[in-house]
Amino acid sequence: MEDYKHFLLLFTLALALGFASIASALTWALRYREGLGWDGGAAEFNWHPLLMVIGFIFLQGIAIVVYRLPWTWRCSKQMMKLIHAGLNVLAFFLAVISVVAVFDFHNAKNIPNMYSLHSWIGLAAVILYPAQIVIGIAVYLIPVTPVYVRAALMPIHIYSGLFIFTSGIATALMGITEKLIFSLKSPGYKDSPPEAVLVNVLGLLIVAFGGLVLWIATRPSWKRPKEGDAQTVSYNSSSPGNVKMARTDQESSLEARRRNGKAEESG
Amino acid sequence: MEDYKHFLLLFTLALALGFASIASALTWALRYREGLGWDGGAAEFNWHPLLMVIGFIFLQGIAIVVYRLPWTWRCSKQMMKLIHAGLNVLAFFLAVISVVAVFDFHNAKNIPNMYSLHSWIGLAAVILYPAQIVIGIAVYLIPVTPVYVRAALMPIHIYSGLFIFTSGIATALMGITEKLIFSLKSPGYKDSPPEAVLVNVLGLLIVAFGGLVLWIATRPSWKRPKEGDAQTVSYNSSSPGNVKMARTDQESSLEARRRNGKAEESG
Repeated sequence: MEDYKHFLLLFTLALALGFASIASALTWALRYREGLGWDGGAAEFNWHPLLMVIGFIFLQGIAIVVYRLPWTWRCSKQMMKLIHAGLNVLAFFLAVISVVAVFDFHNAKNIPNMYSLHSWIGLAAVILYPAQIVIGIAVYLIPVTPVYVRAALMPIHIYSGLFIFTSGIATALMGITEKLIFSLKSPGYKDSPPEAVLVNVLGLLIVAFGGLVLWIATRPSWKRPKEGDAQTVSYNSSSPGNVKMARTDQESSLEARRRNGKAEESG
Repeated sequence: MEDYKHFLLLFTLALALGFASIASALTWALRYREGLGWDGGAAEFNWHPLLMVIGFIFLQGIAIVVYRLPWTWRCSKQMMKLIHAGLNVLAFFLAVISVVAVFDFHNAKNIPNMYSLHSWIGLAAVILYPAQIVIGIAVYLIPVTPVYVRAALMPIHIYSGLFIFTSGIATALMGITEKLIFSLKSPGYKDSPPEAVLVNVLGLLIVAFGGLVLWIATRPSWKRPKEGDAQTVSYNSSSPGNVKMARTDQESSLEARRRNGKAEESG
């Protein structure tokens, strides 16, 4: 891998920002809000930001870059696809629980659902996400789709994945804005109490995490190497960046074109 | 150009969404709010969303994709760089006026500045933007920077440009959320009056415009062709997608590598 230390530094930073985001969301719920519960009240609402940060932002972000971790290049591509899909499915389930929590809370308090821009874009993202997952599994995980269909759809798969991820972050920023305005009264949001500062910082952490994920996911030189046969990967554990893969004759020119297309698309 | 009709369709759609965004922002100010003025009051504030939509979103978006318009491929690269830089400088000036408007309004009403996540991320974007412009002009427009420096910085220039643009859109969505909560009282935002629906739709239009700009800007096949000498471009006006460029010997292998890197980065 080209520039392995640079990759490692940025990936570690992304992980740190992701964990700091989750810690901030947890601190917000437990220290400044009503804690966590499942009673139709505020404690149930508090699962909403926490599970969205864990699932729709952190897990989805890790799922996006998981192919690029050099220490996974010994695993078969099929195994990595399973991990990529599994992380996304897990993130989707957390998002569903998170949405149920906020609908329960609204219904219990007679607050209308789906009136805000946050809810419009958020629901669109939460509907597009399983569509992306189902199409992704059908096209790339089940080994029946012809290579040319996989190749033709790959730019759309990559773009829509990054678009859904970015929309999730934008939705979180709107959600933070709404919640701080609604819940901080005296002192209010404009008086910058510690809770407001903490949650604004949560917003910055999410943006920085998202920015790093998008950077890592779009560097051509950090792409998983071509794979003729996963069993032939030679991996030097003393220098994890030094991965060589034997090419096999199976790699047709069509397949090569597909891979080149992918490299450019994810660039 | 590969798939010219497809490009034209998406670019026209992006333009339509951009104009619809500006029209919605104008309708919001003139029909539902206090109009436009420069008196420290609400009419001055109303320049803020309008100028941000025109400058930081629409003009910046057009500046991002301007190299990819096939009917500009007869122009020299230097001319297109001037247009790219000029559109960005204009967008930045509109953003500055827009920020002055909101600070004036806050100061006149004794509302604190810079307390919200909207203001934090928005100010960061408005500070990063001129840094991006100045570095871009220094590195790419003034013909003194060595080719290898230009090549090395291009992935960062492209990424940071798209990041600032996307951050601007996320900031706009937060701003819409704030403004609708603060200004709609009876009926409130949660009662979905026509103004709330219009401005939510403005948010969707902005997201769709941004999504199209990011798609157009990252398709490798829609990149401006390599240019040995701009004067040698053969442009078939009856079929605007059919542009051929003669290569010259000036194109060194380093330059070729740089272009390949750019193609991948913008992919």
